[in-house]
Amino acid sequence: MKKALAIDIGGTKIYNCIVDEKGQIVSDVEKRNTPESFADIKSTLENIVKSYENDVDVIAIATCGAVNNENSGIIGSTGNIAKEYPTMDFQGLSSKKVFVENDANCAAWAEHIIGASKGYAHSVMLTLGTGVGGGIIIDNKILKGKSGAAGEMHFKMRTDKHRKCTCKSWDCFEAYASGNGLKDTARELLKNPDLTSYDVIDGVNRNDRELTRAFQRWEDDIKDGIIGLANIFDPDCIVLSGSMAEFVDTDYLTDEVNSQIVTTPTKVLKGQAGNYSGMIGAALLALGINS
Amino acid sequence: MKKALAIDIGGTKIYNCIVDEKGQIVSDVEKRNTPESFADIKSTLENIVKSYENDVDVIAIATCGAVNNENSGIIGSTGNIAKEYPTMDFQGLSSKKVFVENDANCAAWAEHIIGASKGYAHSVMLTLGTGVGGGIIIDNKILKGKSGAAGEMHFKMRTDKHRKCTCKSWDCFEAYASGNGLKDTARELLKNPDLTSYDVIDGVNRNDRELTRAFQRWEDDIKDGIIGLANIFDPDCIVLSGSMAEFVDTDYLTDEVNSQIVTTPTKVLKGQAGNYSGMIGAALLALGINS
Repeated sequence: MKKALAIDIGGTKIYNCIVDEKGQIVSDVEKRNTPESFADIKSTLENIVKSYENDVDVIAIATCGAVNNENSGIIGSTGNIAKEYPTMDFQGLSSKKVFVENDANCAAWAEHIIGASKGYAHSVMLTLGTGVGGGIIIDNKILKGKSGAAGEMHFKMRTDKHRKCTCKSWDCFEAYASGNGLKDTARELLKNPDLTSYDVIDGVNRNDRELTRAFQRWEDDIKDGIIGLANIFDPDCIVLSGSMAEFVDTDYLTDEVNSQIVTTPTKVLKGQAGNYSGMIGAALLALGINS
Repeated sequence: MKKALAIDIGGTKIYNCIVDEKGQIVSDVEKRNTPESFADIKSTLENIVKSYENDVDVIAIATCGAVNNENSGIIGSTGNIAKEYPTMDFQGLSSKKVFVENDANCAAWAEHIIGASKGYAHSVMLTLGTGVGGGIIIDNKILKGKSGAAGEMHFKMRTDKHRKCTCKSWDCFEAYASGNGLKDTARELLKNPDLTSYDVIDGVNRNDRELTRAFQRWEDDIKDGIIGLANIFDPDCIVLSGSMAEFVDTDYLTDEVNSQIVTTPTKVLKGQAGNYSGMIGAALLALGINS
């Protein structure tokens, strides 16, 4: 069975492991902090590749940032990683084929092949973590757009410039539906600038009325965003993954969304491809696994 | 050259004409009021088809409502047309092939083949009329979704249940970016329940300060919606067509959108396929014209 060295490059951590063409992780998962300098990121990647490239058929990279339509490099800037990172020559890491794709697109592909959206031609995946990532599958293909940057979940939830988004614009879905969004919503509603998203989850577990209200507002913001996506894409399902997804009531979201959309009924599901879905999806894509 | 009998079935009017495979209208355009009863709609269509089917190769229908992925019929309800209309047996109208597609998708296809988005693989078309229609082209194909209903421009502009939308949900893009949206925005801002969208356009032409402010709010709502669509689709261009599009400053929108998106630069353009782009697009699709 063919295998890929899968590497997940994020703003804070770099993971790597070996994944087979069934999407199974067949090695330990290694984890490092993402170095601050581009030179150190590069040498970290070189060391990982050197250690494992002889054991695999292909190198599969899931990365933060938008990846071009040739799956060879990054386009534009990527926020919280060394500013020269977009110049990275990924193919230069190995004499074997190096395949690169955006981490959320990889996670969406993992869900599509082995996870919650398996068997569905049309799905939207949202990773609810510190931020919000998006990966959209149309007709069994990842939506990339003209240059590879599609699937960014920066559509507005209001138009009165209320909350600044990490993208420097205002009031994007990410600014409300993310873990940071939950924190900010709680701070606003409870007028307490020290609250964290953990405090809110803890409060929900303790049946704290005010914190539960903040949580519900957050969940309803996710619902309102999904309504728009369901009307735009008419997807078979919307998959929620990422660290914050476990707290969401997908039955509630499914019912509410279906009661408000003008397209045909859809399903809101929790991701099933696990915490390493980015690496799994990158490997499946790099190995050419389409179903 | 092959020709199609093209029919545009809307909630208020039914148009028909003959279109060739270059997208040229080669007959007079006939116009009728849409009958109230389903029986009368059906007999109107039967009469049109009987009159022209011998002169053409195929029947091409652009219709209100979502059309299935087989391009044979309507799925679900369609708002302001006889409630039995979704049961229409379109193929039953003729022994020749009857091809059916949603009117906004048809208009998007006309722009894609002979209009503003010609030569671009990825585009989003918005028809700004009484309501807002949407047609999305991805990789030179119309985005249909799992059952054909994709491209509905019902994503939220705010989440505080401020303005009811025609879809019965709240605060959709359509409720702000449409002609009716302009009217409602002006009525709200000027606290005058008698204003029409014509009054606003007239006021802009007279440099009326308050009405111009209402117009600019409307234009900025369109801008904010486009920002989301550009981040989701990374399109080559966004095409604005429909009766309200002529009033919009597309250079302003292009600059503002590009200053706020996280994807790659795009263009906001006015449609060029004309008032009958629905029929032209239906004909091109029915005749299999892909480029």
